Amino acid sequence: MDTITITGFREVPPFARGLVRDIRLRWVLNELGRPYDVKLIEQSERSDDAFLALQPFGMVPSMTADGSSLFESGAIVFLLAEGTELAGPAEARRGETLAWIFAALNTVEPYITLLFVNDRARADKSWAQEARPDLVEVVNRRLAVLEVRLTAQDYLLERFSAADIVMVTTLRFLPDSALLDPFPAVSAYVARCEARPAFKAALEGHLADLAPVAQAA
Amino acid sequence: MDTITITGFREVPPFARGLVRDIRLRWVLNELGRPYDVKLIEQSERSDDAFLALQPFGMVPSMTADGSSLFESGAIVFLLAEGTELAGPAEARRGETLAWIFAALNTVEPYITLLFVNDRARADKSWAQEARPDLVEVVNRRLAVLEVRLTAQDYLLERFSAADIVMVTTLRFLPDSALLDPFPAVSAYVARCEARPAFKAALEGHLADLAPVAQAA
Repeated sequence: MDTITITGFREVPPFARGLVRDIRLRWVLNELGRPYDVKLIEQSERSDDAFLALQPFGMVPSMTADGSSLFESGAIVFLLAEGTELAGPAEARRGETLAWIFAALNTVEPYITLLFVNDRARADKSWAQEARPDLVEVVNRRLAVLEVRLTAQDYLLERFSAADIVMVTTLRFLPDSALLDPFPAVSAYVARCEARPAFKAALEGHLADLAPVAQAA
Repeated sequence: MDTITITGFREVPPFARGLVRDIRLRWVLNELGRPYDVKLIEQSERSDDAFLALQPFGMVPSMTADGSSLFESGAIVFLLAEGTELAGPAEARRGETLAWIFAALNTVEPYITLLFVNDRARADKSWAQEARPDLVEVVNRRLAVLEVRLTAQDYLLERFSAADIVMVTTLRFLPDSALLDPFPAVSAYVARCEARPAFKAALEGHLADLAPVAQAA
């Protein structure tokens, strides 16, 4: 099997620890039992040509295997999962997995990110407090759709898939755990997925690779 | 070849005409020369169970073919393009196409959507004007990355691909065309892609299917 190398940031500010998207790649690789190396990137390297060749937007993660590299966590998770139980084996399940990965990243995540950024900005932006109710309302509409689905079944598809890896790591960006209180099925779903050994190993690996908090920018 | 049916809204407010995401599916299907039917959805049907079975979030588009359905425009565009020149033929090009589709929908589109929503809200939300400079700054950082890439080559990959369909339809959400003025290579790229007969046919088909403006909600 080819050697897989993924990228992660070594210095991560306290609020983003446990959330950076290299966790998605660690999680799927741990589910599949595939070994991987992690190349830790310094913040000072983010605009270097060598790094931008891996990730044109200067972000993490990216993945290199067999001399070719890929970026965007959604794409990488899907391509790793293809042909395995995490996105198959049937063709219909492959399509559904991809649809729900896009749903997580384009229909759910943008609004959670907005709220995350807004709440982080509230201390020093007067408009952030005013903007919040509209942002919470959109997030709640998305969570209500998930609540219906996850009341009827334990996972987004009929059993655990790569889409759950992407959705749960998206929901972990919710800036206040109380936001999930009105959605017990979603809460239970996140807990159910986070209890998987592969998630725990991914999170531990991510945290162990970070520079001590005192050194964070 | 199986009969493909896609969904679109019949009633679309003036500001969203020419932008709704059924255009992505029409575009890729026109590029591939595949015939399709359009099922037009009334706004009053959006919370019907039959519609939510096609698209759990009550949005468009979705696609039905051979009795199975799929949602999320990014997923559908990719799955239609797989195995064709729009996402292949080489495996490396397939992965790159998927990566850039995710880049359009998760790294670029969320910030353009934010600005789009913010600018639409400016008339009646006092904070929208204050929030705008930060939003423009993030959009500009994304466009700067595209400018570098599209100065070096005509398309996101070495030739036209499904990723261009998704990126161009994302850039069309920019709420003010002057935002592209500092990015001449991106402007030329959008014009180059919009000049394709398949895009023109997609836009014409989308507009022809809409109810007259006077009836829009």
